[in-house]
Parts: sequence; structure tokens; C-alpha cells
Amino acid sequence: MSIRVAVDAMGGDHAPDVVVPGCVEAAKAAGSAVTVLLFGPESELQPRLEQAGAPPNVVVVDAPQVIGMGESPAVAVKSKPDSSICKGLGAVAAGKADAFVSAGNTGAVMAGSLFILGRLPNVSRPAIIGVYPTVKGRCMVIDVGTNVDCKPEHLVQFAYMGSIYSERVLKVGNPVIGLLNIGEEPGKGNDQAKAAFELLSSAEGLNFRGNIEGRDVMEHAADVVVCDGFVGNVILKLGESVASILPRMIGAEMKRQQMTPEEQQTVGRALSGIARRFDYEEYGGVPLLGVNGTVIIGHGGSGSKAFQNMVA
Amino acid sequence: MSIRVAVDAMGGDHAPDVVVPGCVEAAKAAGSAVTVLLFGPESELQPRLEQAGAPPNVVVVDAPQVIGMGESPAVAVKSKPDSSICKGLGAVAAGKADAFVSAGNTGAVMAGSLFILGRLPNVSRPAIIGVYPTVKGRCMVIDVGTNVDCKPEHLVQFAYMGSIYSERVLKVGNPVIGLLNIGEEPGKGNDQAKAAFELLSSAEGLNFRGNIEGRDVMEHAADVVVCDGFVGNVILKLGESVASILPRMIGAEMKRQQMTPEEQQTVGRALSGIARRFDYEEYGGVPLLGVNGTVIIGHGGSGSKAFQNMVA
Repeated sequence: MSIRVAVDAMGGDHAPDVVVPGCVEAAKAAGSAVTVLLFGPESELQPRLEQAGAPPNVVVVDAPQVIGMGESPAVAVKSKPDSSICKGLGAVAAGKADAFVSAGNTGAVMAGSLFILGRLPNVSRPAIIGVYPTVKGRCMVIDVGTNVDCKPEHLVQFAYMGSIYSERVLKVGNPVIGLLNIGEEPGKGNDQAKAAFELLSSAEGLNFRGNIEGRDVMEHAADVVVCDGFVGNVILKLGESVASILPRMIGAEMKRQQMTPEEQQTVGRALSGIARRFDYEEYGGVPLLGVNGTVIIGHGGSGSKAFQNMVA
Repeated sequence: MSIRVAVDAMGGDHAPDVVVPGCVEAAKAAGSAVTVLLFGPESELQPRLEQAGAPPNVVVVDAPQVIGMGESPAVAVKSKPDSSICKGLGAVAAGKADAFVSAGNTGAVMAGSLFILGRLPNVSRPAIIGVYPTVKGRCMVIDVGTNVDCKPEHLVQFAYMGSIYSERVLKVGNPVIGLLNIGEEPGKGNDQAKAAFELLSSAEGLNFRGNIEGRDVMEHAADVVVCDGFVGNVILKLGESVASILPRMIGAEMKRQQMTPEEQQTVGRALSGIARRFDYEEYGGVPLLGVNGTVIIGHGGSGSKAFQNMVA
């Protein structure tokens, strides 16, 4: 039986223009293994599908309402039951889809997931993970944006969710958990971090390593970096920006050094493998952990490549 | 008349072993323009000075007590009046030194500065600036570690201090101020950022641009990035780590691509200029803004090159 992926066709800064081709490419590549259910206004989507030469495993499901990026999440979700976000999540809740994918208003996806899918037991705050390139491969950062004012006990829940995801999905054995802080010693940090350190130190079933600092993230001091969604979002986006900024900085440096075209090509070749590791479009989306259903959240700026990878 | 720099010889992870040679090099380079007053236990420092062949403009001032990196700042400063931090700051307060330089316990330097030097008018929380490489050069981040639990009005003070420093010292005309946040729209962020946005929007005499995101820092969306010391410290250290991690990542990538030694040399040449821009040792130290005296704070991990640049 094919996996049915519900996609929010209206989510993201460049929706639906980049969503449709991304989904079409993903559907073509997956063939009959995947059915893409495209949620959005039928009148807008159907012409684009035909133009993109969509295969039969891409199907439009009419959702005439659209939740904008700037709308208040809770209000939008309650007042727009026929939005692509609410109808897509509804399909997952009803067992008509196996997963929901959106690059739209993150808060609305979060709120909709809570209302429509509900939370898993013992989770008060579902969270989004981010992925960071490290010297050893990559690590997870949790939370990266859904929870910006956290209590220490929320950070502990993030640690458990991150640990389970890292172990079960990423197949990391006994994942090391680190608390993002401004110093390594116990007692360092703001009130939230100090209290979270205490709770994590006595939490059972976690391989808690202690505090880690900003410089330790890419050194792979931990498999799972725990922080509140404000800090996590800032460092995730900062890291992503390296993918686009590094080539420009190095380009300017090569010009300054008056490198030959051949030399520039050599540098570009070495660099391309690195910049790709910082590029969120390569990862596509990240799961929302702690809700009762599979929800993948993409970046607001996602392009069609990101949608293709999210669906894949 | 020569500038008298009081240096905490016992501050930093590798003190005093890296401090003495760094100061000796700086003193040699500056000649009679600078006198370095080295604060620490005379019995430990004098032999090291002789071994390093110190010129006459490096002078030891005996300060037998040492404040460790893990000590509680307020307690340490009160109970150790003969520490290198307290005696060095005391020299600035008494007009016997023009500046104090330390890579020691940042909290103790901050607490000591407050007790011994006092605050400037209208400043409730002195702050440390950090420097970030950008596509246009560099930007300032304030605060980067002294204030980890901030009220919104503290962020406004950081904005003013950063704006003045940027304009007067870095000679940036009408510096652009950005509030570090998780989205660009007003209303985004945690409670602290939302309230700070409101205050900054109505603050007079500031060129406030609005919210900026993690990805905007290195794009130079602002000359002065305002945030609390927890977030600032995390992103500063994350940025610094790029200097050491990038060469290793690219080294592994070049090996994977089986590049020739000549090609690797070309890549290394282009990269060295970039990695240097992320390297805190190049900047040495950063000023503590808002106290009544010149205080330069170095990184705990500072090497002798950093001390040399701090004194310079």
C-alpha cells in the first residue's frame, strides 16, 4: 500500500508556486509507493498541476481557506477549519493520510496539531528538531522554534523526545544529551538553564552529559542539544546562513588574492561539499515531536527542492 | 606620557603561562608608549618575566590572591581584596592605570567593576560586546555574556551603549540597531523580545531597524545586534567555533575528493583569510560598556596572541 502524504500547498513564503513542482518531482521519483494529497484551493492548484505535468499519484484536496504567515496561530486555526493546515491535519487524524507536511505558519501548524491530533502522553509541549552539521556528521537541536518561553521541565521533555528520536529514527546508540548553556560548569547560565540542569541531572533513562557551550555544538559534544525554542531558532538560522554566506566571503577573498580561474574552481569544488551540509533545503523538513501523528515542518523560505525532499 | 595597562596575570584557562609572554611581546612592540602593570602573585610572576626577557616597561604589582574561574563572582570579589582582579580594577579607580585587561572569571570582573569603578549614569546593567564577521565586514553583538536574565529595558540600554560605541569608537555613521528575534514581524518572539521591540520602537535617538533573525546577523542586517547575554554568548561562541571547525571539515572534504597537495594548498590559502575573521584571538578582548573606567574582557581560552592583541 502506498504512503499517503498530505501536503499544505499554501504553506511557505513561495507557496503554492514552489510547492507544486516539488511535489510533482517527489511523486514522479517515488512512483506508486507514495500518494501526494495536495491541500489548498482547487481552483489555484489544478491549473498548476496540469502545467507541471503531474502524475496520477498527485491529487488535489480542496481546502479553500488560507492561513497567512503573520496570522495569530490559535485564532487562525479555530476560525479557518477549511484551511489547508486544518484539513491536512484532519486527514491524518482521520487515518486518510499517513503524514502532514507544511512550510506554512509554524505556530498554526503547532496549534492545529494540538487541537486536531492531540499530544502524546507526558508531553506538555511538542517541539521541533533542527539538524546541525558537526565534525562527526550531524547533531539534533531541540526545540528550534515552537516554544519560545519555556519552563525548565519543558526542556526535560525535549531531552526525552530528542533522545528517543535520535535512538529510534537516526539509529544513534545511547545518544548523548547536552544542555545548551553559557559555561560548562554546573551553576552556570540563566535561571531556566540552571533549573533545567538540576532536573536533567536526576532524570532517569537519559545519557545526560551536562552543559555544553555554543562552540561545542559543531564539535559534536552531544548528539542531542537541548535548548528553548528562542535560542534554538536563532542558532539554527545562523547556521543555515553559513551555507550562503561562506561562498560569498570566500569569493571576495579569492578576488582579493587575485586567484586564477583554475584556482577558484578548485576552491569552489572543496567548498561545495561543505556549504551543502549547512543548507536546509537538503534536509527538507523536520518532524514535530510529541503529537499524535506524523507532522513535518518545513522552513518558510523553502524552495521546490526542499518540498521534494520533505515529501521524500 | 605612556598608557598604563593593568593586566590580570592570573585570568584565563592558561594563566599565567600565556599571559606573561603575550604581555612581553605587546610591551616590546609598543615600546615606551605603553607600560604593562602585571597583577598577580609576585613569586609566580617575577621568574616568568625574567625567563621571557621582559623589557623595563613590564612591571609586576603583587596581588597574592587568585579568583578562580568557577568561583561565585560577588563572594569572590568581596572576600579577596588582594586578588589580581580587585587590585587591578583598584588601580584604574585610583587613576594609577588607564585600563584593566582580564581573561579571568567574567562575572568577577563584572562584579568587581561595579563595586570598584561604579556604573555610568543611566546604566543599570553594564554589558560586553562581541564582534561577528559579516559579508560587509563585521557587526557588534551586545550583550554576549554578563547579563543572562534580562528585562526588556536592559535590552534598550544595550542598544544605546552599542549605538554609541559603534558610532564613536568604530566610526560607523548612524549605526543600524537590530533586535535579535525568531521572526521579522512585530509581535514575534518570546515575552522579553516582544516587550523590547515595543520599547525600542519608541526609543529616541536610535536608528532601530526592527527584528532581525539568526540568518541576518552575518548578512549585516544591523551594525549593532541587541540580545540578552545568554543568546549572545551562545551565538558568539558558535561563530568562533567556525574558525577551528571549518578547516577540519574542508580538510576531510578535500581528502574525500582526493585533491592533490597543490590543490589543497590553494584551498588552504583562500580559507585562511576567512577562518581568521572568525578567530577571537585576532580581536583579543572586548570592552565592558557602562562602567566608569576602561575594562577589556578576554576569552577564558585566550592564548598569548590574544593577550598581545588585548594589550595592543
